[in-house]
Amino acid sequence: MTILADDKVTAAASTDANHAAPDGFNLPALSALTIGERLINPDDVPWIPYVPGVDVKPLRLNRKTGLWVNLTRVAGGGTVSRHYHGSAVVGYVLEGSWHYIERDWVAKPGMMIWEPPGDIHTLVTGSEGTTSLFLMEGPIFYLNDDDQVVAFDDVLTFTKMYLDHCAAHGITPIDLDY
Amino acid sequence: MTILADDKVTAAASTDANHAAPDGFNLPALSALTIGERLINPDDVPWIPYVPGVDVKPLRLNRKTGLWVNLTRVAGGGTVSRHYHGSAVVGYVLEGSWHYIERDWVAKPGMMIWEPPGDIHTLVTGSEGTTSLFLMEGPIFYLNDDDQVVAFDDVLTFTKMYLDHCAAHGITPIDLDY
Amino acid sequence: MTILADDKVTAAASTDANHAAPDGFNLPALSALTIGERLINPDDVPWIPYVPGVDVKPLRLNRKTGLWVNLTRVAGGGTVSRHYHGSAVVGYVLEGSWHYIERDWVAKPGMMIWEPPGDIHTLVTGSEGTTSLFLMEGPIFYLNDDDQVVAFDDVLTFTKMYLDHCAAHGITPIDLDY
Amino acid sequence: MTILADDKVTAAASTDANHAAPDGFNLPALSALTIGERLINPDDVPWIPYVPGVDVKPLRLNRKTGLWVNLTRVAGGGTVSRHYHGSAVVGYVLEGSWHYIERDWVAKPGMMIWEPPGDIHTLVTGSEGTTSLFLMEGPIFYLNDDDQVVAFDDVLTFTKMYLDHCAAHGITPIDLDY
Repeated sequence: MTILADDKVTAAASTDANHAAPDGFNLPALSALTIGERLINPDDVPWIPYVPGVDVKPLRLNRKTGLWVNLTRVAGGGTVSRHYHGSAVVGYVLEGSWHYIERDWVAKPGMMIWEPPGDIHTLVTGSEGTTSLFLMEGPIFYLNDDDQVVAFDDVLTFTKMYLDHCAAHGITPIDLDY
Repeated sequence: MTILADDKVTAAASTDANHAAPDGFNLPALSALTIGERLINPDDVPWIPYVPGVDVKPLRLNRKTGLWVNLTRVAGGGTVSRHYHGSAVVGYVLEGSWHYIERDWVAKPGMMIWEPPGDIHTLVTGSEGTTSLFLMEGPIFYLNDDDQVVAFDDVLTFTKMYLDHCAAHGITPIDLDY
Repeated sequence: MTILADDKVTAAASTDANHAAPDGFNLPALSALTIGERLINPDDVPWIPYVPGVDVKPLRLNRKTGLWVNLTRVAGGGTVSRHYHGSAVVGYVLEGSWHYIERDWVAKPGMMIWEPPGDIHTLVTGSEGTTSLFLMEGPIFYLNDDDQVVAFDDVLTFTKMYLDHCAAHGITPIDLDY
Repeated sequence: MTILADDKVTAAASTDANHAAPDGFNLPALSALTIGERLINPDDVPWIPYVPGVDVKPLRLNRKTGLWVNLTRVAGGGTVSRHYHGSAVVGYVLEGSWHYIERDWVAKPGMMIWEPPGDIHTLVTGSEGTTSLFLMEGPIFYLNDDDQVVAFDDVLTFTKMYLDHCAAHGITPIDLDY
């Protein structure tokens, strides 16, 4: 890591107009303004059936930024149908494997996948299925064979799905909007 | 600003296992890794007709992150029809005024507007029209009166529109993908 | 814009396992989950003396993401001393002009400037001074002539500066944490 | 998921000025503008000694946005000394456990941790050590007992560390700048 040398720091501060705040506030003062951290225990969030063979467990649903993070569990041979992401996506494989039928690589445990806006792909698992972590921003569009958008999801649709699922199953939802 | 006091910095660094890099690299070394900055002159980008009464001038079209930034010029009485943003949007009014017909405030020069994912609105200008700067992430969906999506735009559609416009008018496009 | 034409949408939805939610929720339902937008009137935020010759007017201070947006007004011949940004910065010139003494370009009204993480520069204005909008993420480090960090600012230091300034001048602060 | 109903789509597009682009470009055309995805195999990146008891394996080092993603492996009883993040951080525990000595919770496998800008903490592992995934934006500051900054790291220091480590060990670095 970069070590910050110290000599002349005070001198610089006292002689440079842009550093003329010798009695400035400090980190303890900032701590009073720092908001709280969040710890999400996956046991506190149910698996929610998404489409046949695919369950999702949301870990973050930020309605201010549009970020949404899910564990996605796909049964062996399952599919997440052809889609287009409006923003970039990051995936991290926890178990099993999957691939996109449009690509020639296979995502395996420990691998990180980054997909740019506009990437169109169809996720298919190996026979063992997979559990992966997906960090998304903004909407996902599902496409038909004619490249037309037939459905979408985003942080709001997933928030609604989560709340509806909890209501239907007598589960108290936790706050995932962070 | 916060002034970093200097005494004991080296000592702390040399006695704490997590700071044991007294000969670490420094900022000049990092400069060699820093990529170049960008300066966009609006005179180098044409106004592109978007819909009747609305012209756009893209200033940034980042195909990695999905960020897109436009100057949007709407003629007096012009409209940007009803739409839904999949991610948050920031607007900053440069000239004239506009409002959303779904809201009771009016955006005037110098005002900053932040819209969360999912905000649905229809932009209408005052008689003088407006020029505003909009910073967007991810897609915008246009909606019909039944709240169904009938069209969308994003960083890729605007990149295509920009390149097509340049090709049609003999303009050399500049690199806005930063 | 891209038109989402389609005469087979319902059929696709009903026959594709990944689209099997024909009675799904819709945009009006999502509207109930959408949080409110924000409109910031610059007249509601004071100019705050930052260093001699430089005043700032914060328009956004997001303590969750670290985003902070300021109007920065620099008097003719004024300087923002040599600094390093830990994340990318976007600037947009509203009035006057400025340049970095380390660069050979001049930023003028309407120009957009993007600076990558690590960019080190010293802002100097022309004789007419400048007002520019700066959108930042994360800290700015001020450096001495030996490339050592002598001070820093970020969303929290600016939040404290804003609140302290308001308290000292009997101003009621508005909520800029969005 | 939300199904996009289709009736009246064309009609809306042809009658509304803001949708008057019936021969607009479409998704296949956009595909030509979409940049390539990335798959990072952790076997292609070495573990790099960071401080005694802590090794890191960078998976992403984005010099444009300041995002940096690491696997962090801490030996049993190991420590990442007291620090301050300038932007938000997301952690996801893969193996073992850790906690912050300033907090009363313990992070275990499968848990997601979000930390706001300014959060100050000292990471300590349980006896079994831990491997966790950390997604960061912008700098981390290391602090001494007097709350003064004594060192920092960011995407650039980690890029340098990665390149230096590869050079020293005859490893060909892969491109992590995505």
